Amino acid sequence: MTLFAGPVRIVGAGLLGTSIGLALTKQGQDVIVSSQSSKSVELAIEYGAGRVAKNDDAPALIVVCVPPALTAKIVAQELQQFPNAFVTDVASVKESVLEELVSLNAPLERYVGSHPMAGRERGGAIAGRADLFVGRPWVITPHETSNPSAVAQIKKLAEALESSVVEVSSKDHDRAVALVSHVPQVISSLLAARLVPAADSDVSLAGQGLRDTTRIAASDAELWTQILGANSTQVNRVLKDFSGDLAKVISALDNLSDPLNQQVVDAAIRQGNTGVEKIPGKHGSKHSTYSQVVVMIDDKPGELARLLTEVGEIGINLEELKLEHSPSAQIGLVELYVLPSVEQTLITDLQSRGWRIA
Amino acid sequence: MTLFAGPVRIVGAGLLGTSIGLALTKQGQDVIVSSQSSKSVELAIEYGAGRVAKNDDAPALIVVCVPPALTAKIVAQELQQFPNAFVTDVASVKESVLEELVSLNAPLERYVGSHPMAGRERGGAIAGRADLFVGRPWVITPHETSNPSAVAQIKKLAEALESSVVEVSSKDHDRAVALVSHVPQVISSLLAARLVPAADSDVSLAGQGLRDTTRIAASDAELWTQILGANSTQVNRVLKDFSGDLAKVISALDNLSDPLNQQVVDAAIRQGNTGVEKIPGKHGSKHSTYSQVVVMIDDKPGELARLLTEVGEIGINLEELKLEHSPSAQIGLVELYVLPSVEQTLITDLQSRGWRIA
Repeated sequence: MTLFAGPVRIVGAGLLGTSIGLALTKQGQDVIVSSQSSKSVELAIEYGAGRVAKNDDAPALIVVCVPPALTAKIVAQELQQFPNAFVTDVASVKESVLEELVSLNAPLERYVGSHPMAGRERGGAIAGRADLFVGRPWVITPHETSNPSAVAQIKKLAEALESSVVEVSSKDHDRAVALVSHVPQVISSLLAARLVPAADSDVSLAGQGLRDTTRIAASDAELWTQILGANSTQVNRVLKDFSGDLAKVISALDNLSDPLNQQVVDAAIRQGNTGVEKIPGKHGSKHSTYSQVVVMIDDKPGELARLLTEVGEIGINLEELKLEHSPSAQIGLVELYVLPSVEQTLITDLQSRGWRIA
Repeated sequence: MTLFAGPVRIVGAGLLGTSIGLALTKQGQDVIVSSQSSKSVELAIEYGAGRVAKNDDAPALIVVCVPPALTAKIVAQELQQFPNAFVTDVASVKESVLEELVSLNAPLERYVGSHPMAGRERGGAIAGRADLFVGRPWVITPHETSNPSAVAQIKKLAEALESSVVEVSSKDHDRAVALVSHVPQVISSLLAARLVPAADSDVSLAGQGLRDTTRIAASDAELWTQILGANSTQVNRVLKDFSGDLAKVISALDNLSDPLNQQVVDAAIRQGNTGVEKIPGKHGSKHSTYSQVVVMIDDKPGELARLLTEVGEIGINLEELKLEHSPSAQIGLVELYVLPSVEQTLITDLQSRGWRIA
């Protein structure tokens, strides 16, 4: 017994295509891997993501995993070539793909868009993992003409990969990801770009704040140019609001003798406080409710394990954890995030066991 | 034998003052804690940060740990009241403090500015820790008229707290922290502020990218309004460049039919790639040289300890570690960062021990 009534055909053997193939193959599903690049098909198949296509293949489901700019064209081709298959894609923009499919007169009843939100900093088949999607949101974007059984099949796919299905319209999806993903990418890139002309000695004073705000600036430029281009309207709506807010702060900082302008700066930081509190934390709980306890450990193998074993012995569950190395000393700083009600117990117990709390 | 020739007087009993007092007291140094708030002095002393001031105190060193906007005034008072003491402060801006001291005709030979870069999200005496400064940079900003023995005493203080001393001019300091700390704060706050008018359902799609870019947006508004105001020239210089770059991206995204504009977006993301590579990583090593391995763990006490114990058994040292919880499932995703040369060994060995690599 396999998951789907026929083979699942994956078009595009990068990170996402390979990972989907690996996960489905593991579950006994017959998976076909196809790509314009025969080399990446070979690689994905060698990894166990599926098999090569045969002439008489009659896939039940097709998952298009190509770059955003090519997605609609390939989806339309697949719908035409396999008239009995349901088709989805994994592009991180949905409205422009749908619009292009409409303009191509594609038979949209059998198509439902997807966006598995399993970001990784590195792509390619070599980075593929069967467990890539576990516990991650998988957005499904049904449209006016999509067949309910198409929606059901795509849901089945997401659930087989242990994702959490989120169902929204493609327009709502694009508005949401512009805000929570695409705009942060632009802002982080532009912030990191300001480091380019700076002296190394200036950059060397970087702390965790700069590291956090610029981490995603390391993302792939080609991919992101496509994503931003395909969602430019929604992205620019937010960027223009951001730019207006920034202009107000710049103008205020230029004229601080006016006490009203100090209020402008203060209000901007406070709005940020309010905004960050809206981000859901662990498993959807409130983000801001954790207490931070910073513990120092020697920077050698086993120390972190020893700390966490003792935290377990104390009987406290960690909500979040971050490891940070001191820029100079051979010391690691471990940020433990716990419920406020257990913070004092944790500090007291760790100190009595000889740990240094920073 | 104590560290300094006489008592160390700490003015201001917040996070930094209390932490300095705790660290010095632990080393047998006589520490005086003073503050306009008698309540916070009581609290800091109860915590072991020092003793109350006496009329005949003759401090050898005074550390002013008050909010930035009050710093110069208090430093000048202390220089006058204790004509034999060296004085430093811990404000995160240095040039405006020095300028105000000059305008107050303070005897600057005995003053050298400090900026211990030990950021914590929470302040107050209650958050004070003796180990707060260990392994962190402590910037010292000598000026034209500062006495070499003043500089030596402040260095001794930073070293006693196990910080790494960085010596630069106040102007160079302010330019550097504008870039690596103050501007990221403004940008992060403005980015988080964009979440305020958004629907909760949109914000609920937030991933690690948004969490990282907006973490510091939770910072204290009153403190940051003072910091930004005191370094407004340097901050605005960078913000205006950022704003110009942003305007170019917005304009390009508005007119993507022109292929040159796709290049503008692409170039912006690539500049970000280049910028983020300039940030030094662990102990000053290159930031971009680590490989990321994502391991899934059950979200229950002891699982992370078990993973890290096994990583230790495999004999691999972690360069960085991040714990991320899936927004919906009872699963934790652990990001392990290791040297690329050991990545494959780590993956293979963890998989053979039954761990799921995402």
